[in-house]
Amino acid sequence: MTDDQRPGEFELIERYFAPLAGPGGLDLRDDAGLLRPGRGYEVVVTADALVAGVHFFPDDPPAAIGWKALAVNLSDLAAKGAKPDGFVLTIALPRDWTEAWLKDFAAGLGTLAGQAGCPLIGGDTVSTAGPLTLSVTAFGTVPAGRMVRRAGARPGDVVLVSGTIGDGALGLAVHGPDRPGWVAALDDEQRRFLADRYLHPQPRIALAEALQRHASAAMDVSDGLVGDLAKLLKASGIGAEIDLDSVPLSAPARAALMADPALAELAWTGGDDYEILCTASERDYSALIAAAAERGVPLAPIGRIVPEADAVRYSGKGGGQGFARGSFSHF
Amino acid sequence: MTDDQRPGEFELIERYFAPLAGPGGLDLRDDAGLLRPGRGYEVVVTADALVAGVHFFPDDPPAAIGWKALAVNLSDLAAKGAKPDGFVLTIALPRDWTEAWLKDFAAGLGTLAGQAGCPLIGGDTVSTAGPLTLSVTAFGTVPAGRMVRRAGARPGDVVLVSGTIGDGALGLAVHGPDRPGWVAALDDEQRRFLADRYLHPQPRIALAEALQRHASAAMDVSDGLVGDLAKLLKASGIGAEIDLDSVPLSAPARAALMADPALAELAWTGGDDYEILCTASERDYSALIAAAAERGVPLAPIGRIVPEADAVRYSGKGGGQGFARGSFSHF
Repeated sequence: MTDDQRPGEFELIERYFAPLAGPGGLDLRDDAGLLRPGRGYEVVVTADALVAGVHFFPDDPPAAIGWKALAVNLSDLAAKGAKPDGFVLTIALPRDWTEAWLKDFAAGLGTLAGQAGCPLIGGDTVSTAGPLTLSVTAFGTVPAGRMVRRAGARPGDVVLVSGTIGDGALGLAVHGPDRPGWVAALDDEQRRFLADRYLHPQPRIALAEALQRHASAAMDVSDGLVGDLAKLLKASGIGAEIDLDSVPLSAPARAALMADPALAELAWTGGDDYEILCTASERDYSALIAAAAERGVPLAPIGRIVPEADAVRYSGKGGGQGFARGSFSHF
Repeated sequence: MTDDQRPGEFELIERYFAPLAGPGGLDLRDDAGLLRPGRGYEVVVTADALVAGVHFFPDDPPAAIGWKALAVNLSDLAAKGAKPDGFVLTIALPRDWTEAWLKDFAAGLGTLAGQAGCPLIGGDTVSTAGPLTLSVTAFGTVPAGRMVRRAGARPGDVVLVSGTIGDGALGLAVHGPDRPGWVAALDDEQRRFLADRYLHPQPRIALAEALQRHASAAMDVSDGLVGDLAKLLKASGIGAEIDLDSVPLSAPARAALMADPALAELAWTGGDDYEILCTASERDYSALIAAAAERGVPLAPIGRIVPEADAVRYSGKGGGQGFARGSFSHF
């Protein structure tokens, strides 16, 4: 309980979090929530923590912070081929929190939870002398044995990526306090597009089933394509040849790269894409692309898996040099 | 990755967290963990956040902090009748974290995880400009439909509590920086006992099955017996008559109350007991006590459920006056 006019934990749950529990939702006032996976299903569990000043700006719109806290976890579930089933939230509120902030935060969180069919099933609200800190643990279900892992890529597999890469990192630059010069070359709509890609990542939930059926390995791209590809390759014990010219860019990202060609490296190594990086066998990858297209998600082939462990050869414009950021091995 | 000599996130996972994943453990380097409840079982989910300076002293032994972060969650699972199955940890490390601290923290966490058969299945490590912040989400399994809820108590049910009450709150006073005068009346062993009850709460995992079979409602006592009982009664829509003389106290707690009788209120309203408060029907409660005793856990009857909603009548020494702390309704 707070000592002032602000509501206590019980009232917060009642006013702002109970509506996120969904119509058939559990009683958030009990000590625990319940997951009831169907027969033959397993529960995929993922967790991400977000700290104000590290993962978002403290003065970002609270609804965007709420959205993002869940979105980054749903992105992991999608990459694992899992259908969202519920989440828990622990939130450490800084001394100066306001009810208006929390209301908007819960609204943003609830919008995505509703869209994704992913109710809140529990959590904890505490106070902190430090910055706002959020931790979301999200749950999804997959048929037993069908979770898509990082470690399944095989030599000869095609490497694919969903949507467009680099918008998140460019959007952070557009949205952040230190706008670089190239931002002036973009029109308002382009700036809005990129900033929105940073603030409201769209987890690729629609891809989950196609990945589960056709992908040999997958992960979401949250820390930059180059670095995340290195992690997938390490887990699978193989390497890859990537054609950087094939990496899909949005029209606003292309406009930014026209204004400053050096931004290509930021696009390939910057974080916050929340797209899916995956591999599929030569036999399966066309079916994967078709299944994704049916769900409205573009998937682009960007290279091939090769047997050499941990080695990546990048070709295309900008592929000649190494990357200052991200794990990278040139051979 | 940190810029200094301290290990990065990958190395931290490898060195300190991977051993907590257990022998059949999942690859913590993937994006997600897996739960595989047996056929006919459901997954109970609980989450608690702990912030340095709020839930523990920043200079508490790191092994005790690690132990407690998991213990408070296992206590919730036990109260719900669930067998521990795994947990995820998100940890926001302050700027001045050291590898020695993290090593001891993981050791304390791992000791309890090993004892409880509750492996680490995932998590996230981030940095914060604020205090150390931990969030644990723990999973347990129960036969479908058998999770013990707060909301199941009926008029005529017997109210019971496990172990002894008040040691945690008294232990906090003994352990904390501002030792009250009564501490001088205790001998070293009594002080150690109480401080240890605060630092190393023992979740009542052994009670889970007995609760699931015989209890009508249960919750763990983490915020004080008086306040937590009020929550259980509110959830069940009933009241209770409690005999405070029946509330079990440890010998060191009795010694403290001898030195300062006013401490009785602290014992009944202070937090950090991590005992189980439960109810059982007149027909079932003897079987519940017997099943608990078989597992080595004492369960004491302390009162009865009455039909009047939200009303508690306390009798016994100290029961004549209300409680300054905790939810309390005198009638």
